[in-house]
Amino acid sequence: MRLCFIGDSLVNGTGDPTCLGWVGRVSASARRRGHDLTVYNLGIRRDTSVDIAARWQEETARRLPADDDGRLVFSFGANDCLTANGAPRVAADASLAHARAVLAPAARRHPTLMLGPAPLYVGDAGPRVGLLSRAFAALCGELGVSFLDLYTPLSAIGLWRLETSIGDGAHPGAAGYALIADLVEGWPPWRQWFGE
Amino acid sequence: MRLCFIGDSLVNGTGDPTCLGWVGRVSASARRRGHDLTVYNLGIRRDTSVDIAARWQEETARRLPADDDGRLVFSFGANDCLTANGAPRVAADASLAHARAVLAPAARRHPTLMLGPAPLYVGDAGPRVGLLSRAFAALCGELGVSFLDLYTPLSAIGLWRLETSIGDGAHPGAAGYALIADLVEGWPPWRQWFGE
Repeated sequence: MRLCFIGDSLVNGTGDPTCLGWVGRVSASARRRGHDLTVYNLGIRRDTSVDIAARWQEETARRLPADDDGRLVFSFGANDCLTANGAPRVAADASLAHARAVLAPAARRHPTLMLGPAPLYVGDAGPRVGLLSRAFAALCGELGVSFLDLYTPLSAIGLWRLETSIGDGAHPGAAGYALIADLVEGWPPWRQWFGE
Repeated sequence: MRLCFIGDSLVNGTGDPTCLGWVGRVSASARRRGHDLTVYNLGIRRDTSVDIAARWQEETARRLPADDDGRLVFSFGANDCLTANGAPRVAADASLAHARAVLAPAARRHPTLMLGPAPLYVGDAGPRVGLLSRAFAALCGELGVSFLDLYTPLSAIGLWRLETSIGDGAHPGAAGYALIADLVEGWPPWRQWFGE
């Protein structure tokens, strides 16, 4: 199985001293359970839904041969909510349009999962992330793409806020990435990919 | 510092149960020594020098903002040497032309390092890898790009051959990736990037 993880800095694992991020953690765990995986981490810092829409097809097509079992995991949206020049970098309705333009064709081509954006503590962006996460959940429901809400559970965990606040307000350390990995590992759609 | 590692399956870390590969190992080690790194792993299985030449500029430009300290580490060539339809997938003179077309502009744009291909044990490709590694070393000398010979030291390590032979002949396990990481960590041009 070949998996492409497409998203922003949280997919990249930015700030994790182990250089695993949640992607490395869930992938190594699947390998320990006996599954043969090839993992392509396509997280890019500061990427918005606009950036993801522009590159996902080309970058995943290079990595997923037609004769292999390719899978897609998306996670983005937090950077859309950051304030630039007094407004969100990408307005919510545009974020939703871009997410639809990505997820609908992706899900027709490969088994596809979507993780919502995680809570961040940068300027006034925080509440917008929660709203966008709920809107993404509704969109994914409509498209038949399984959606994992990170915003709600991570907002309730003090360690998440503590680690991201010690950092730059958006990126946790090793413990925060382990928290995300735990949420993914406990998510039935992820386990079902491995027949578990 | 933002680093792009561009190459083939050995850059990707294919077959490593820890999902770190040598890229994750040397990056986590640099973080432990106090350096702030963002790492983009752009290794793709089966990529030849032709594939690298076609994608490196676009994929690294998306990941290295002009106002940040971007660095490039290349490693490719082994897939060029694999036999397909009775001949190497890419002939040696073409491999060299593609490597030149990649490394010359890369080194003008960012600090750039090149690692040679590692020994593999697939069909009759093995000796060709050794020859191509030497040719790449000469090319890099001409271009002023520091080159790390993996072929010579790894060929002399029984554990490398053992692990790759247990696997598919081309990919080691965790110990083999740790061997590459050790060679990179002991390489002065790599350490000099961090002022060490």
